[in-house]
Parts: sequence; C-alpha cells; structure tokens
Amino acid sequence: MGTLGEHRNEVNLEKRGSFFRSFRSDLKETFLPDDPFRHLEHQSGCAAAGSLVKYFVPVLEWAPKYTLAKLQADLLAGITIASLAVPQGISYARLANLHPIVGLYSSFVPPLVYVVFGSSTNLAVGNTAAVSLFLGSVIGSEISPLESPELYKHMFFKAAFFTGIFEATLGIFRLGILVEFFSRSTITGFMGGTATVVIMQQLKGVLGMRHFTTKTDVVSVLGSIISHREEVGTVNKGLNPISISHLKFESKYHGVLLKAVLISGFLALSEGIAVGRSLATMKNEQVDGNKEMIAFGMMNIIGSCFSCYLTTGPFSRSAVNFHAGCKTAMSNVVMSMCIMVVLLFLAPLFKYTPLVALSAIIIVAMIGLIKFEEAHRLLEVDKFDFVICVAAFFGVIFFSMTAGLLASVGLSILRALLYVARPTTCKLGNIKGTEAYCDVEQYPDSVLFPNILILKLGSPIYYASTGYLRERILRWIEEEDAIARKGEVNLQYLILDMSGVTSIDNTGISMLAEVHRYVDRRGIKIALTNPRIEITEKLKSSKYLDLIGEQAVFLSVKEAVEACHFTEYKNELV
Amino acid sequence: MGTLGEHRNEVNLEKRGSFFRSFRSDLKETFLPDDPFRHLEHQSGCAAAGSLVKYFVPVLEWAPKYTLAKLQADLLAGITIASLAVPQGISYARLANLHPIVGLYSSFVPPLVYVVFGSSTNLAVGNTAAVSLFLGSVIGSEISPLESPELYKHMFFKAAFFTGIFEATLGIFRLGILVEFFSRSTITGFMGGTATVVIMQQLKGVLGMRHFTTKTDVVSVLGSIISHREEVGTVNKGLNPISISHLKFESKYHGVLLKAVLISGFLALSEGIAVGRSLATMKNEQVDGNKEMIAFGMMNIIGSCFSCYLTTGPFSRSAVNFHAGCKTAMSNVVMSMCIMVVLLFLAPLFKYTPLVALSAIIIVAMIGLIKFEEAHRLLEVDKFDFVICVAAFFGVIFFSMTAGLLASVGLSILRALLYVARPTTCKLGNIKGTEAYCDVEQYPDSVLFPNILILKLGSPIYYASTGYLRERILRWIEEEDAIARKGEVNLQYLILDMSGVTSIDNTGISMLAEVHRYVDRRGIKIALTNPRIEITEKLKSSKYLDLIGEQAVFLSVKEAVEACHFTEYKNELV
Repeated sequence: MGTLGEHRNEVNLEKRGSFFRSFRSDLKETFLPDDPFRHLEHQSGCAAAGSLVKYFVPVLEWAPKYTLAKLQADLLAGITIASLAVPQGISYARLANLHPIVGLYSSFVPPLVYVVFGSSTNLAVGNTAAVSLFLGSVIGSEISPLESPELYKHMFFKAAFFTGIFEATLGIFRLGILVEFFSRSTITGFMGGTATVVIMQQLKGVLGMRHFTTKTDVVSVLGSIISHREEVGTVNKGLNPISISHLKFESKYHGVLLKAVLISGFLALSEGIAVGRSLATMKNEQVDGNKEMIAFGMMNIIGSCFSCYLTTGPFSRSAVNFHAGCKTAMSNVVMSMCIMVVLLFLAPLFKYTPLVALSAIIIVAMIGLIKFEEAHRLLEVDKFDFVICVAAFFGVIFFSMTAGLLASVGLSILRALLYVARPTTCKLGNIKGTEAYCDVEQYPDSVLFPNILILKLGSPIYYASTGYLRERILRWIEEEDAIARKGEVNLQYLILDMSGVTSIDNTGISMLAEVHRYVDRRGIKIALTNPRIEITEKLKSSKYLDLIGEQAVFLSVKEAVEACHFTEYKNELV
Repeated sequence: MGTLGEHRNEVNLEKRGSFFRSFRSDLKETFLPDDPFRHLEHQSGCAAAGSLVKYFVPVLEWAPKYTLAKLQADLLAGITIASLAVPQGISYARLANLHPIVGLYSSFVPPLVYVVFGSSTNLAVGNTAAVSLFLGSVIGSEISPLESPELYKHMFFKAAFFTGIFEATLGIFRLGILVEFFSRSTITGFMGGTATVVIMQQLKGVLGMRHFTTKTDVVSVLGSIISHREEVGTVNKGLNPISISHLKFESKYHGVLLKAVLISGFLALSEGIAVGRSLATMKNEQVDGNKEMIAFGMMNIIGSCFSCYLTTGPFSRSAVNFHAGCKTAMSNVVMSMCIMVVLLFLAPLFKYTPLVALSAIIIVAMIGLIKFEEAHRLLEVDKFDFVICVAAFFGVIFFSMTAGLLASVGLSILRALLYVARPTTCKLGNIKGTEAYCDVEQYPDSVLFPNILILKLGSPIYYASTGYLRERILRWIEEEDAIARKGEVNLQYLILDMSGVTSIDNTGISMLAEVHRYVDRRGIKIALTNPRIEITEKLKSSKYLDLIGEQAVFLSVKEAVEACHFTEYKNELV
C-alpha cells in the first residue's frame, strides 16, 4: 500500500512544536480566546502600560473622546431608563421582601461604578426580578424578613459583597467559560418559570385582599379596592446610607450565603453578559465577557458598602437604553443622577403608592419574560434544547429556583458529555464525478468499492468514547466483510479519515492499536487520511505510526483510494 | 455566487427523516451501540424468544457445545486460579478487616452465578484489593470492626446486595456509558495510589511488631519473629452460611451504605469490564459491557445472601486464567469446586498461617499494581492524561480513596467539557496541485486566496462554545481583512467548511446568523460546504438557509472556491 510514495503529496507528520508552546497555545485558546492584549505587542513599555490601564479602566479610553452629540443621545437614553428604573427598582425590591428604597439605592451607586469599569456601551445597570426573587427565597429560608428585618437586609448586602468578589475573581482568572454553560435555553426556561411563579404570587396579593366586600356591584367593589388597598408606607429622603459595617461574616449563615453567592452570581453574570453581547452584535461591537465580570464584581463590591443589593445588566432596561439611542455608558450616569434627585426630593411621595400598582408593574414586566414563541422555536429546531428549557421551567414552578436551574444546567452538561461519549462516525462513498467523499447515508448514490471500507472517525477519541468507537468500527468491518464475501471479494483495506478528529487521548490511541491488530489478523490493511496537527504528534510519540507505517498516512481519501487500487493492480500483475 | 448552479454537484439538504426515526437512531447509538439484538430481526417469534433467553443467559448458548477438550483446558486453568484464589481471598478479606474465611466464601458462590450469566470467556471472579480496602475504610468509619464485628460484617453483605442491584440496574438500562468515564488513566493512578497505601500499612504491620528483641544477632531476631508472629486464628470448616436475614435495611446507616454502593459499584464494574474487554480483544472476541453488568449484579445479589462481599473480575486472577488457557467460564466452576474442598476439609489448617505471610502476599500483589512505565507513557503521549492519573494517585495517598477517585473523574469530565467549550477551528489553504484544503498552520506552503477566507469549523457548536466561536471567527475576519487591504483587495468571501461539525444547537445557529449579519454588513458573502446530515435539517428548520440561500451551500471547498472565482470573473466582465 505504500509503493505510491513518489507520486503522492507529502503528509505533514511533524510535531506541533515544543510541549510548552502547544500548552501555551491551548491555555490561550481556553482562557484568552479573544486575545485581549494583542494590541500591546507592538507597543513600547510605557505605551503598553498605558494601554493596559485603559484596558482595565475603559472610561480612560472613551471619556477623552466624548462629544456633545454623544452627551445629547446619552442624556435622552438616561432619562428614559431612569423612568423605568424607579418603578422597577421599587417593585423588584418588593419581590425580595426588601424595603422599596433599597431598590432605588441599588440604581444609584452601581451605575456610577459600572461607567468606570464597564466595556459595554449599551448596558443599563440595575436589579433584576429573577435575582431578587431568588435571593428573597434563599435568605428568607434562614432569616425571617418580618421578625428580623435588619438582619435580613444586611444579609442581602453581604451576599452582594461576596457575589461581587466572586464575579471579579472569575473575571480576573478569565473563567468566563463557566458562565457559558448557562445556555440560552436554560435562561429561557428559567425566566419563564420565575415569571410564572411571580405572577401567581402577585395575583394572590392583588386578589387575596382581606375584609373584601361581599357585594358584587361595581361601586362596592371599587370602593372596597380603594378603601382596602395597602400602601408602600413611609419612605425617607436621603442618599444611600453606608452599610460597610454590616458586612461582617458570621459563620452561622455561611451555608445560605454560599448558596446565594454561587447561584445569584451565575444568574447575574449570565444575564448581564448575554445582554451585553447580544446588544453589542447589533452595533458591530464586541464585548469582553471576562472584563465585564470584573466590572460587575467591582460595582457589587462597592455597591454593597452603600446599601445596594445585587445588580447586573437586566435585559429590559438595557434594551430600552439601546433603543433610546445611548452612545456610551454615560447614560448610566444620567440615570443615576435622576435617581439621586428622586432619593433626595421625591422619596416621601412614594408613601402613598398602592402596593397593587407595584404588583401590576411586576405582572406586566413578568408577562414579557414568558416566551412561548422562543420555546416553540426550540422545539422546532432542537428537541434537546427544548427539554433543557422545559426542565428549567417546570423545575422552578414545581420545586425551587435552584432545582430548576441545576436540573437544566445538569442536562446541558449531560448533553456535552454524551456528545463526547458518542462521536459521530460514518461510512464514506465517492460522489460521482468528483474527488469528494461523503457520508453514504446522506448521499445514497455515492460510489462504494467492494474491497475498501472508508470510515470518517468522529471526534474526540477519548476514554469515554473508545469502547463505543471500537465496537462500532469492528461491527462495520464485519458487516462490510459479509457484504464483500457475497460479491466474492475480500475486504482488503480500511481507510480511516481522521480529518474530523481534533483530539485523542491515550486510551484512544490504544483503541486504534487494537483495531489495527484486529484487522491485521484478518489480512486487512489500514490507512489514515489527513490527520490534524493535534493528532500527528500523539500518533508519533505513542509509536502508533511505527505500527502502521508512515507510508500508510495519506493527505486525502482520494489519494488513499488511488493507492489501494494501484497496489491491487500491481498484485494482479505479480 | 449562486450562478454556478448548473455545473455544480447537488448538496443533499433533505431532512434526515422523521423526528422519531432520528430520535430512535440517536437513542440506539447512545444506549445500544453494539446493537445486541440484531440477530433476532430475521428470526421467527419462537426462535427469537429462544435467542433472547440465550442472550441473557449465555450458558444456554455455550454449554450444549461444550467439549471434553475444552473441559481439559478449563480444568487446568481452574486449578491454577484456585491456587491464587485461596491466598488472595484471605489476604484481601484482611485488607477489609474481615475474617479471612469471608474471602474464601466470596470465591465460592459468585463464580457459580457468573458462569450462568457471564459472557466473557476469560474472566475469573473474586474479591479485589482496591474494593476491599475502600469498603473497609468507608464502613469502618461508621462501625468499628473490633467493637461490633458482626454488625460490621453484615454491612459488607448489605453493601454487596445493594451494589449488585445497582450494577444490574445499570446493565438493564444499558447505562454502561457511565462507567466509560473511569478512564484508564484514572484506574492507573487510583490503583497505584491504593497499592502504595496498602504497602505502607502492611509494612507497618510487618515491621511494627511489639515486644521485639533488643539483640541484633540473627538467631535472636529470627527467634523473636517466630515467637511473636501473629496468626490468623480459628477458622471453622463448612460452606458459606446463609446471610439473607442480615440484609435488613437500617436507615441509620443509609449514608455510608449509599457511598459504599455507588463508589464500590463503579470501581468493581470498571475493573471487571475493562479486564473482560481487553482480554477478549486478544482472542478476537467481543464483550457486551451492559450484559456483563447484569452478570456482576446477579452474582453479587446472590452472593450477598451467602456471606459473600463484593466481587468482580479482578485483573490478576483473570490474566492468570487467560494465560493458563481457559476456554470458557467453566474454569470459574472448577475454581469454585476447589474452594469448596478447601472450605469443607482444609479450612482449620489456616489457623496457623502467620499474618506476616498474608502481608507478604499482599505486598507482592500490590507492587505489581504500581505501574511507573504506564505513567511515564501517559506523560509522553498526553499530558492531560498524566494529570488525571497523578490526581488519582496523590488524592488516594494524601486524602482518601474517594477524594482521589472523584478528583480524577472530575478532571476527566472537565476535559470533556473543555473539549466541547473550545472546538478546534482552523484556516484552510489549498495544497498545491490537489483539490485538498488543509490547515494552513500544518501546511504552511498551502495556497491562500487574498479575497477568500476559508475556515473549518470545529464541533460541536453548542451554547458553551458559541461565544468562543463567534469571537474567534470575527477576529479571523478582521485579521484577514487587514491583510487583504494591505494587498489592496477586499475580503469578499467567507467559506465555512462544515464537514467536521456533527452537532449544533439553537444557540449555535443563532451564532451563525449573527456571523452572517456581521459579514453581510461588510459586504462579505458567506458559503457553507458539506454540511452533515445531522446539521442540514436544523439549518433548514431554523430558516438559516433562507438567510444565506440554498445556492450558497456547496459539496466541497473546491467547488465553493471555484464559484467565488467564477462570480468574480463574471463581475469583471459586467
């Protein structure tokens, strides 16, 4: 099979480079896929240091280029989102069983921090419904908001503080990859489930008024609604009180704190980053997820010292910001200033806000989060995605927010593991009149050679998939051999197309060696085609190439098939 | 780009078939990759039922064909492994802090069950060092073997019973896939670590004798060793006592039982199945992992009713069986009969066996399990495998067997997740004089076209990898555009080679759509080549194909490049 040596194209079997070079490149692809420091390479020391500072503090980059035209746009967007931030801030704080003013506080300080460190131009900072509800249920399970309201509130600040540290740490160590396992399907299901739960709760609040009239006429009902409506109650004027002294860590609550930090951290990051990214794509911009994490972390650490609870970049507010034409993160400052005015002068007016009105705001916001069309699209395109979404939805409704989230993420991870455990392998045939070899299942008219079996190996070939791949390959050989014998030829060649294999481990190479021994005993010759750079090195160092011979490696399936035919022809001559 | 329609080869964009058909095929590949019932398809009802019974009770298949020649071979092999089973059974029981006789019991009943249900012809059944040590440490952490020896012993039977149920369940539901995450690297490290711990323990026992002589002359030392040596103690004659009445489930110990069952179950299964498979390959046979699990389960369920603790197919005993020339599972029956003779007549003789001798047996067996060359090979071929192995080794030595195992399996799973999160994408160039397009990094001499960027997309395109892939692709486009502009051309075409992509989800398709929008705004046209059957359906149902147009999908990179050139030429004419 190797005598075609002179006519064939050389396969590059060289090593990829030293271990440390390839290790460095792997590390970079894993943790620095966006190569954030690539601009620094061609700069002198001083300029590079400047660029580095600008990289971590983006405000230094864009503030000097800030124009009046941009300010105009940001002013409009900022005022628009402020008008949304006030009712949302108050309502979501209520979802968390916090005093409404905490919601306003949380829309004042964090935006000012985000504007310094954030790299998204579209994000509007604030509290979100899902995180508020989640924190309310987790912290409320340990501390009653009615019995010890102060302790309860301080736990929110503590949670925000540690979540901030958690977020910033993930960002610094560039572990944004972890957040990537919260898929869009998970978020869709989780938000839908959360929204459903919230609506139920609020409807109970709206409908379940005590001392309600027994009469059914309109006048009595309206009268009863008006006379029995509950109100927000006293709201004091003034900016955020300093809460840094309440951030003491008590070991008594470390369990609940850990749960709150981990899950709300992932929730907040995945929402904030997904929103930032999808809005950026619409403007042809890019958002560095890991840098955003540092910004979110900073705003929560600082926010928690000023009576703010966990904030992120919520979808609704950011979308409004985007559509109102914001140009830079400055719109957050404008919003923050508006909130300051409210806190300083208008806060007492909220005293008479009926709770029913807040419930109504919440319900309207929540209805928008239940996306039936999105779920339907998932069902149409990808059933597994739909299952992931449904698991989150029903998990949240029937069990708990944590259970729904974990079930859904677990399924996502299971899918990834199943992918690795069952790499797709297929039999190839020649498309008539071309040099292309494609899946015979997809192209039933493709040409097969009775004495040659061509398999395109799936990837990766890992411990978890070798058992499967071995059995699958051996069964293919048996079947093909049976077919060949019916046509009174023998199966002579097994061509393994390696072009799709991007990773192999030790067990995988042992499996290939076992397959080789198996076909060798049956007198079948093995050929590899187009092994990738990641693979050739391992094939060499494991001595697998010595086993099959370097001349059995071809650049393309076409060349391997030609070599088979050539050898056969030669054999007939001899 | 679409006007080449007449000359080009058709790309099959048809659906793969109904959802249920493809779902069935996916399920089959996942859980029945070996298609165990394929022989039944062409049989009549009655014959099929017979084959089915034979499938689950393999003894019915091979016993009628059993010959005297085979018996001769099995007799020899059986007696050989019995001579190993006696000292091993006693020693390993001692590792578990059980009375030595339990080790002999465990080599009597389980082999008789295995011979009925087992499908491996090489496996020899018995207890193993790692499982004994693990169960000893887990159960011993709750119940002291010295204070309540009976309760301690009964916990071993209970653990064996539930592990048996666990194993059989995994087998029946064909979840052998779970065991595949115990890679060979994990087992190498785990066994090495366990062996090291055992050797330390035994050396302490051998060297740490109390009341030792202070004199140093040979006579005194030997005299002291002989006079101080501890012995096994009374061993009663008789076969296994029935222990079914001790299998009551007490909720008090459910935690320790659960841990013992889960981990020892995985340990026992992964050793037994790996040993069975690797020995089978040497004889050109195949072993059905899931069927083996049912056999292991049955032998442990029945064994636990007869004073046996957890057994599997240990490597050492099975390898001896194989090399002694066993032909069928009958050698297990021969071994079992030999053990019966020992139990009935020779047991009391073990009374005077010095414990030091048992320690020596254990140490010798353990040294064989520390495989430095294997670890060195892992380091040579695949660094990550080496890390997985080392994690198990040091985890076992410095923390606990559970910690070592979990750390190692965790790393294996992490590797699989990283693979999914970072699919390998590369830029392709044409190999001169061929139609092949290969990685330009691997083939630096390959030909590039200044206005065409060809990328081979990695697989899978999942939620977890879309963020990475989008940033990677956009960066490539930017770089390529910059290079093109230097040469005063524009980047006009982006060809995405999909031949390696075997799975895509909703988020993945959204990402492709985003890339399309991005390049569209820059006036770059997009083409796909050779999408696989798993992908075309989703591209269609998600309307992605409507976005780029079906004429933008080509069979091969070569045809796509030709179409680009053709369009360009045509544009020049116009």
